[in-house]
Amino acid sequence: MSKPSIPKGTRDFLPDEVLNRNYIFNTIEAIFQKYGYLPIETPVMESLSTLTGKYGEEGDQLLFKVLNNGDYLSKADQDALHNKDSKRLTSSISKRGLRYDLTVPFARYVVMHQNDLSFPFKRYAISPVWRADKPQKGRYQEFYQCDVDIVGSKSLLYEGELVKIFDEVFTKLDIAVSIKVNNRKILEGIAEVAGAKDYFAAMAVAIDKLDKIGGDKVSAEMIAKGISEDAAKTILQSLSITSLAELSTLLATSDIGMEGIAELKSFHKFIDPVGITNKIGLDLTLARGLSYYTGCIFEVTADDVQIGSIGGGGRYDDLTSQFGLKDMPGVGISFGAERIYDVMKELGKFDSIPSQSPIGIILSFDEESLHYGFQCAHQIRQAGVSVDIYPEAAKFKKQMKYANARGFKYALIIGDQEVSDQTLSIKNLQSGDQQSLSLDKAIELLKS
Amino acid sequence: MSKPSIPKGTRDFLPDEVLNRNYIFNTIEAIFQKYGYLPIETPVMESLSTLTGKYGEEGDQLLFKVLNNGDYLSKADQDALHNKDSKRLTSSISKRGLRYDLTVPFARYVVMHQNDLSFPFKRYAISPVWRADKPQKGRYQEFYQCDVDIVGSKSLLYEGELVKIFDEVFTKLDIAVSIKVNNRKILEGIAEVAGAKDYFAAMAVAIDKLDKIGGDKVSAEMIAKGISEDAAKTILQSLSITSLAELSTLLATSDIGMEGIAELKSFHKFIDPVGITNKIGLDLTLARGLSYYTGCIFEVTADDVQIGSIGGGGRYDDLTSQFGLKDMPGVGISFGAERIYDVMKELGKFDSIPSQSPIGIILSFDEESLHYGFQCAHQIRQAGVSVDIYPEAAKFKKQMKYANARGFKYALIIGDQEVSDQTLSIKNLQSGDQQSLSLDKAIELLKS
Repeated sequence: MSKPSIPKGTRDFLPDEVLNRNYIFNTIEAIFQKYGYLPIETPVMESLSTLTGKYGEEGDQLLFKVLNNGDYLSKADQDALHNKDSKRLTSSISKRGLRYDLTVPFARYVVMHQNDLSFPFKRYAISPVWRADKPQKGRYQEFYQCDVDIVGSKSLLYEGELVKIFDEVFTKLDIAVSIKVNNRKILEGIAEVAGAKDYFAAMAVAIDKLDKIGGDKVSAEMIAKGISEDAAKTILQSLSITSLAELSTLLATSDIGMEGIAELKSFHKFIDPVGITNKIGLDLTLARGLSYYTGCIFEVTADDVQIGSIGGGGRYDDLTSQFGLKDMPGVGISFGAERIYDVMKELGKFDSIPSQSPIGIILSFDEESLHYGFQCAHQIRQAGVSVDIYPEAAKFKKQMKYANARGFKYALIIGDQEVSDQTLSIKNLQSGDQQSLSLDKAIELLKS
Repeated sequence: MSKPSIPKGTRDFLPDEVLNRNYIFNTIEAIFQKYGYLPIETPVMESLSTLTGKYGEEGDQLLFKVLNNGDYLSKADQDALHNKDSKRLTSSISKRGLRYDLTVPFARYVVMHQNDLSFPFKRYAISPVWRADKPQKGRYQEFYQCDVDIVGSKSLLYEGELVKIFDEVFTKLDIAVSIKVNNRKILEGIAEVAGAKDYFAAMAVAIDKLDKIGGDKVSAEMIAKGISEDAAKTILQSLSITSLAELSTLLATSDIGMEGIAELKSFHKFIDPVGITNKIGLDLTLARGLSYYTGCIFEVTADDVQIGSIGGGGRYDDLTSQFGLKDMPGVGISFGAERIYDVMKELGKFDSIPSQSPIGIILSFDEESLHYGFQCAHQIRQAGVSVDIYPEAAKFKKQMKYANARGFKYALIIGDQEVSDQTLSIKNLQSGDQQSLSLDKAIELLKS
């Protein structure tokens, strides 16, 4: 028998890891709910016709495809089979794939269920997605996304609401962050006044890499894509502007640019009076690679750990038109849960979160005290308190070893004396203190 | 563009459905945690070497297999390709599959992580699984399982604990149930005293169908498998026994049978003093189809809805040996979450569960009141209370239509007067009552 293993790029989680991950998910979910967002669920397996062509050619390669069941070769593309053309064969032997993100399934969902939803529709989803990326440190083939979106409204109030959600989540998780804000229309305006209007997409892709490859290489990339040297220079200079006033002067002749500025002002009119706890600022170098963004965009980085962005998002005009529904504007943000976990671990934040396991375990010395212990466990649990019980009257040393390994704070010890007195000896496993208490008093202690 | 759709046998869930399903999952999870069980997570994609051969030949056919990425045909089995032998080709073009249940991944997990776990190891998992069964009403290809197991102990205390968990979960969900109890060793004893010892497996499979096909057909099936007519008659007669005393007389000459009786007595010594709320009883016709059960077995049915079992489980001696770890006894139960949902829906139980959406929405009349409303929303949420806000000063009728469609209990209405008074007009959308309150008083009302 070969040693069991799991596929590359996937993970098993030990109980402590699951509890810590759930702490993150539950914190985020509670805040989503407080802001009026509703959960939806879509299948893990989507039709390949839904997924293919939505993530570019590279994305299509990274989709996990599920083999059709039964005698799949009987309906296979015979030419592709004969020519051993894997790429062409796939569509004839596989009609389902694993979802690649939560955004495309959301767009499909809105289109399919538009008559059952009230717009603006505010939804969240916290679920795993799959990508056949080469596994490496911190990059997995199966990982979680936490998305929150509103579709059916152009109001900048939602940009304000989403930034408040970023702020509240990271404050609650005790991670200091900086929130970068920009607007794709401002970048379009900069392209326009620099004389590179037709190269906006290439410009956005290039400046998205600014913090990774530096200004010279970004400039070279823009020039390689057809932007003139002068324009590239103007664009790079413009990106260092940090005030909307200065930007208004620069973009005075660009309608689209001025629209972007107006949107940012409208966003600030919502957010400024309530304020946020973390740092927030305009950063024109923020471009967001994804082409579907059309308005305000956001990105969040941790102040104390270098790990890249741990949150991001923005406004899109037209996500559902790929499934046949036009004029459905939206805005959304996403939390990088896997990186947030790494940040919290590095900063030791998990040491101080509330425990989700029982704090006490009942230990017994013989058959009679074991049965009495089972009844005590029942009554403690009836009182709504978590408690565990060692399942047999094993050697005391063995039971204590288990109690310590599991990390219980209290051992509730039952011997002859306790059975006849109807009490429990409660030992604090951290301090070593021991006291004898009635069941009611013991429940009070465990509750506190 | 073709109309978007999802694969046969999969489902989208609307927000209300997700909230109701989560109510079930959260109820079950809170009780698992109260009893000291810990969550683990395993990947959705497992190696096919882990899954194949564990569910019988039929099960292997029902596994969803994931196509290898890249030029998978270059490493394909050339003979199988040439002969268009789908079955043989699969293992050379697919090395991963979707998990079929939570039990086999759990066994693999225990073996791989045995040095990181404390035994007895008590774990739960609430996660989706996939089976390429023919979709039909109530049967899906992607569905949830809720499993709780303990490995590393033979103590019958755990049988008692798991039955208490059944009882507490269904009491909390307000579903009246009956819990059937049996022991596979007793069935082995019955086979032995009937003179059909070597046909135990066939006998168990046959009597598992008793309530579906009736005694005559079960008898015929046993006879067809090689059991004598006399033995078949004796077996069927024995199954109507309901007292352990009568059973002890019948099985006096069978060691294994008497062992089964002793186990049931030991189980009752734990459970009887604490009692359970629902009905519980010995049912010798309960056999459980799965071959890995070796001791006590359980099955739960709803008293008021005919839908088959909504929970089940039992003791197994040897689940991990298939991955190379011997002597790891265990016992576990599983909740049929999909059927529990159907039962609760049929009985109207979801009408009375606590709401998880906000109970109020802020509506405004103009730009100024919209911004004031955003600040009110901020302060209400700061107080830990869920609230929503309509994102623009649209026509009042439109806003009220949205508030009603979303099912909010209160509309918090802001006009000129409210802005200048720093108040909110709160309308109860069910009763139509309206009152003017300060923000603090409004928060109190929403909290209550």
